[in-house]
Amino acid sequence: MHINQERLRSDIESTAEFGAVPTDEGRGRTVLTGSEADRRAREFLCERLRDAGLTVAIDTVGNIVGRWIPETADPNAAAVATGSHLDSVPEGGIFDGPLGVYAGLESVRAMQEAGLEPTRPIEVVSFTEEEGQRFDGGLIGSAVASGEIDVADALEIEDVDGVPLGDALADIGYRGEGRADAAEWDSWIELHVEQSERLETAGSPAGVVTSIVGLSRCQIDIVGEADHAGSTLMGERSDALAAASEFVLAVEEAVNERCAVSETAVATVGKLDVAPNAPNVIPGSVSLTLDVRDVDYDSISHVIDEARSSLDRIAADRPVEATLEHPWDRAPIEMSERCRAALHDAGAAADLDTLDLHSGAGHDTMHVAGVTDAALLFAPSRDGISHNPREWTDWEDCADATRVLAGALAELATE
Amino acid sequence: MHINQERLRSDIESTAEFGAVPTDEGRGRTVLTGSEADRRAREFLCERLRDAGLTVAIDTVGNIVGRWIPETADPNAAAVATGSHLDSVPEGGIFDGPLGVYAGLESVRAMQEAGLEPTRPIEVVSFTEEEGQRFDGGLIGSAVASGEIDVADALEIEDVDGVPLGDALADIGYRGEGRADAAEWDSWIELHVEQSERLETAGSPAGVVTSIVGLSRCQIDIVGEADHAGSTLMGERSDALAAASEFVLAVEEAVNERCAVSETAVATVGKLDVAPNAPNVIPGSVSLTLDVRDVDYDSISHVIDEARSSLDRIAADRPVEATLEHPWDRAPIEMSERCRAALHDAGAAADLDTLDLHSGAGHDTMHVAGVTDAALLFAPSRDGISHNPREWTDWEDCADATRVLAGALAELATE
Repeated sequence: MHINQERLRSDIESTAEFGAVPTDEGRGRTVLTGSEADRRAREFLCERLRDAGLTVAIDTVGNIVGRWIPETADPNAAAVATGSHLDSVPEGGIFDGPLGVYAGLESVRAMQEAGLEPTRPIEVVSFTEEEGQRFDGGLIGSAVASGEIDVADALEIEDVDGVPLGDALADIGYRGEGRADAAEWDSWIELHVEQSERLETAGSPAGVVTSIVGLSRCQIDIVGEADHAGSTLMGERSDALAAASEFVLAVEEAVNERCAVSETAVATVGKLDVAPNAPNVIPGSVSLTLDVRDVDYDSISHVIDEARSSLDRIAADRPVEATLEHPWDRAPIEMSERCRAALHDAGAAADLDTLDLHSGAGHDTMHVAGVTDAALLFAPSRDGISHNPREWTDWEDCADATRVLAGALAELATE
Repeated sequence: MHINQERLRSDIESTAEFGAVPTDEGRGRTVLTGSEADRRAREFLCERLRDAGLTVAIDTVGNIVGRWIPETADPNAAAVATGSHLDSVPEGGIFDGPLGVYAGLESVRAMQEAGLEPTRPIEVVSFTEEEGQRFDGGLIGSAVASGEIDVADALEIEDVDGVPLGDALADIGYRGEGRADAAEWDSWIELHVEQSERLETAGSPAGVVTSIVGLSRCQIDIVGEADHAGSTLMGERSDALAAASEFVLAVEEAVNERCAVSETAVATVGKLDVAPNAPNVIPGSVSLTLDVRDVDYDSISHVIDEARSSLDRIAADRPVEATLEHPWDRAPIEMSERCRAALHDAGAAADLDTLDLHSGAGHDTMHVAGVTDAALLFAPSRDGISHNPREWTDWEDCADATRVLAGALAELATE
């Protein structure tokens, strides 16, 4: 099967224009759900799907599904599905999401051109709000498609300005009808950039994920006293930022220690907001997020317990009040053996090495795997950099990983 | 001389309505230069000045000067001036600034009603952008009035959106003409809330400042690598926030140690911004401010040297790059003996205790003291809280401090 590398590159580079941000190095984009950039990225995808003969459906939460029914297929058979997402973090890279969507489309085009005779329909999917940058939590489209949250609840999720997701989608013309139902799929494979350096280090063009890490997210609020920076002596201060700084370092230390037990454990304070945030005012309050992940569920619990203890100690040592909320928590998830085997088979057939590894990121596949056989395929990321304009995957690596994806989809769709 | 406490209270409570913010405790306001709240606060002041028979002038940078020429005065004699500012920090208190402006006006009204016969004009002043919240640096109006910066340069100072101060003032109708010139004043006294607990602890209604602390401000930028929070193992991270947290704690430790040498030394990281500031992205960069103050100039230099060393050590220990800029630095300033004596005399005449103390905050008086005899008078602050809706000075304390101010102004204005 021939993958057209230039056509794939053209699709990804075209979608990179929507929400493109100026940057000294690499190529960056900001595509938040419901933005003009999102609208244009979606419109372009729908055009490209139709150009390849797929019929396009938009569901109520804006999931885009392009469906190809080969002449040799039973239209009523359960489809084999593939895809990813088009949204990005602020100033994110151009591969995270779009590679999986357009590799899915390229796989269909390659099968068509190779004259393959699949017996199942194939669907190419773009899920809404994977990154969770505008609408909190993320992975929303796949959560709805997997029945993890109701359509109605999803539509009511609000951004920081109180705009519900349903309105944001309607604003750009992508609040459709019905619900893409992942449980109806025979199987699912998502191709995504690795966002780590294991494939690059191993010199392998494709990684077959064995399991996706569990993920816990906490919200921490520290309240001190906003006093004048000049008139409040050191001994009279309740500095929320000094307390928060201790917490950040305590979490770092706790997870570094845990790495001796489970080297894949990670913890991140990624978002931290100071109030009132003025040079001449002692910080009165700080709110911050804690994100903890591992393939080992016990390690996640351990790090969060340590974080909680540290916070209690800090609030005892300093004149601040602190709270930690733990709104969500997800156990690690194993990938389907059948789908993984199809990926290894496809790699072998194309003479491409396929490496078993774990995924540190959540991905929509995490949800889909709850309701059907699912797998996750990684393409190499240069220096492991992601969520950054310097995120990069060589075009040849994009094509090689797509070759593995296409082969696996063809195997799964042909009985 | 009789100070009308209810009239003073009414003026301060009326001005507290402009930019009032909802708050659980106390009374808060946000009055940023050039905002609608600022426009209304200025308009109200101009009305109140005119009601008391003062003529009002607005200079090019928006400084408001109300001038009273007593019948007994030589209109060409150098004026005795008093005042403060109307702007606030975000969610600041209602006394910081307005007390000094309206106590100045109340002093004039009290002198008029007591039938005093001053021989010099008296001016009541509100300086533009004392807090430096919208236009960086602060103390802008007094810097212009004292010739520290040119009118043209001040008008070009831009806010974060690139709006120049001149345009912001024109927008609200307060870009006037000419320049209020502090060098032409015979003398100056500012009444301000203490923003510390020394008066409260001593049970004294009025503090006469001996010197204003020196003040250094630094800008620190720490650059790491914005990577995916799930896919980047702990050993592969360049986390700018973890580095910044170490810096915050190192500064705190350095100044706490210095307090053994000079107990008035303080250092504050008040503003800290994380980028991209998303829960699932490792912080790629952090920018923060450092504010260091003391009456002892050597202590300021010492703490900044320590901060610089700590930053270098952190950048050597962690895979981040860090820079520290030190854009401004001001030595401690002594207050005028003549003006201080007038304040102590007025306290004694009114049977009010006056306590000598230093000022940890800059205040417009810092600039004015460079070009004429100047003094700074403090009223008690409950629990020392300031820059916060819980900032509070009892109305009786406001009136007592105004009594001391009025007496001193009358002495200075009568030859």
